[in-house]
Amino acid sequence: MTKAKTGIVMMNLGGPANLDQVEPFLLELFADREIIQLPLQRWLGPFIARRRTPKVKRLYQSIGGGSPILGYTEAQGRGMVERLDRLSPATAPHRFYVAFRYVPPKSEDALRAMHADGVKRAVAFTQYPQFSCSTTGSSLNELWRAAARTGLRDAFEWSVIDRWPVHDGFIAAMTDTVREGLEQFDPADRDRAVILFSAHSLPLDVIDRGDSYPQEVGAGVQRVVERLGAPNPYLLAYQSDVGPVRWLGPSTEQVIRRLGARGEKRVLVVPIAFTSDHIETLSELDREYGEVAHRAGISHYKRAPALNDRPRFLDALADIVREHLASGLPYSSQYRERCAGCSNPQCRNILNPIVTAAQQAGDGQERLTVGR
Amino acid sequence: MTKAKTGIVMMNLGGPANLDQVEPFLLELFADREIIQLPLQRWLGPFIARRRTPKVKRLYQSIGGGSPILGYTEAQGRGMVERLDRLSPATAPHRFYVAFRYVPPKSEDALRAMHADGVKRAVAFTQYPQFSCSTTGSSLNELWRAAARTGLRDAFEWSVIDRWPVHDGFIAAMTDTVREGLEQFDPADRDRAVILFSAHSLPLDVIDRGDSYPQEVGAGVQRVVERLGAPNPYLLAYQSDVGPVRWLGPSTEQVIRRLGARGEKRVLVVPIAFTSDHIETLSELDREYGEVAHRAGISHYKRAPALNDRPRFLDALADIVREHLASGLPYSSQYRERCAGCSNPQCRNILNPIVTAAQQAGDGQERLTVGR
Repeated sequence: MTKAKTGIVMMNLGGPANLDQVEPFLLELFADREIIQLPLQRWLGPFIARRRTPKVKRLYQSIGGGSPILGYTEAQGRGMVERLDRLSPATAPHRFYVAFRYVPPKSEDALRAMHADGVKRAVAFTQYPQFSCSTTGSSLNELWRAAARTGLRDAFEWSVIDRWPVHDGFIAAMTDTVREGLEQFDPADRDRAVILFSAHSLPLDVIDRGDSYPQEVGAGVQRVVERLGAPNPYLLAYQSDVGPVRWLGPSTEQVIRRLGARGEKRVLVVPIAFTSDHIETLSELDREYGEVAHRAGISHYKRAPALNDRPRFLDALADIVREHLASGLPYSSQYRERCAGCSNPQCRNILNPIVTAAQQAGDGQERLTVGR
Repeated sequence: MTKAKTGIVMMNLGGPANLDQVEPFLLELFADREIIQLPLQRWLGPFIARRRTPKVKRLYQSIGGGSPILGYTEAQGRGMVERLDRLSPATAPHRFYVAFRYVPPKSEDALRAMHADGVKRAVAFTQYPQFSCSTTGSSLNELWRAAARTGLRDAFEWSVIDRWPVHDGFIAAMTDTVREGLEQFDPADRDRAVILFSAHSLPLDVIDRGDSYPQEVGAGVQRVVERLGAPNPYLLAYQSDVGPVRWLGPSTEQVIRRLGARGEKRVLVVPIAFTSDHIETLSELDREYGEVAHRAGISHYKRAPALNDRPRFLDALADIVREHLASGLPYSSQYRERCAGCSNPQCRNILNPIVTAAQQAGDGQERLTVGR
């Protein structure tokens, strides 16, 4: 096997691959203070996780006994590196490594495998198109901590793809899914279907800190709609809020109920912030909200397919990495700017960033210093 | 004087032209249930308006004794129709009419003047780039009510320009203002200035109804930053929240305080949702938040200029109307779709819409029916 020259760490939340992983997944999720902050978290986190386990197990049971996210991520990774080897021979061979946040394979697994493959140049590639501290931020903080825990702190030179909310290839692939979604309606009244973009919500406290997520989601929606060029009305809502705190709205579930109440008969829901099918699409959007829609009198409730392993999306992933490698930049100009209300000194760091052309010329070093 | 062929009603909030107009302006503002919903509004609205009058008078006194918005709107109108007469001879001559929501000239004034000029074809052109029910929505509802009150219900054939959040000319003009704003910083550290886009906030209850405002603001910010192509970090915050209810964040004022607290020295604030200088730029952004910035240790706090009567913005306004007239469409595909949580049957209507080519061909009529 040829030694890999460029390692690409595909970071995502992950989901339990089988029912036995549900409880450990929830325990890790509710222990992560970068996503959820609870009083007495060491006690309350496990309590909530254990209490939710039976219900969440039933949900995973209903979608086939586990999350399909690992399978899709691996298909995406294979498609991506195969394309990259052609598109960017100078950085080939490329190899991908999956780093989930709350289930295996985790950051440690990715780092150890990458080290075993002889990789020196590593790219941390978030699989969340829009940046949020609670998703990409948490994954990156964990990646650097895992590097320290595994003794691989100095093993790689890093750069980060921290967001791609309006990347042309992503928007093109998303627009394809919307078009396919619309094709599920009768041509005679297809143009009347309301396109309901749905993104995972965030607690308002995260928004008020200055998280850029809603701005980036809004920008992506606009781009998809423009590219689609269809006369359908559209709107953006946020799904999956839980617990007692107030989350960013409008709530997807409530919007569906209200659209039905005022007589809409055709709704196409479009997951805009997830790239693979998982519990929030297969169970929440399809079943739970499908039932809400049915009860509200929406006779034609459809969902646009997820990007999953669609060739055009694999093209997009490869193109995002190719552009990033060609830029020579260690991260986007947004990455180092912590949220205005951030109180986590671990945020927005990078280990051993690549040396940029500007730095080699003795310029712009300071912006790259870790822990600015 | 040649009879006007196309009348363009420029709708905006308006502001008191002199100190005597402050109290009536506030009385009208706090009586508008489409922007503010208070318990016992007929009593509490005037109470709050009268109590705020002395403070607001002092603010207007400090910016020269009144709002400059009428002067700028008239300059925008003149530049727009002059360009339109060249760009769109088939619909010339064009004439503009200002319709402010809470101070003269109001909708009645615009409608009567337009009627006196012999206009038959009228365009209701919002001067808010991003749509919100509390701004453009309220202005349009009032325009149709004023037409009924003045007996001019059947006087005009209408079309509506209800939003233009990412129109190329608008984005180009906005990007110019950001560039000029950045030029106020020393070239040596200009790239480190944080660009803080600031839009007027909305109560979360409006957001939760499904108002499209934050999505459209987010899209515009992305477009400006892309066109700017500068390495500066940026963020979007919301200003001017008042009263006890929770508003959409992050709060511009709090973000400025926090950026200062963590050691930022250079901040450029950019008004993204207003087109003319007014109390929220000249007093709130420049003075009030300028003072906050100073106290927080931000040594270089600057504001990008408002669009006002910049020629490139006048080009944009003319181009928006030209495109709209050429499209033959009565409104955007978003306009007729009421918010999912809307309870106001007046919303999203239009009087005597123009007959479109599709309708003349006997197609698509139903979508144009008022009160769908």
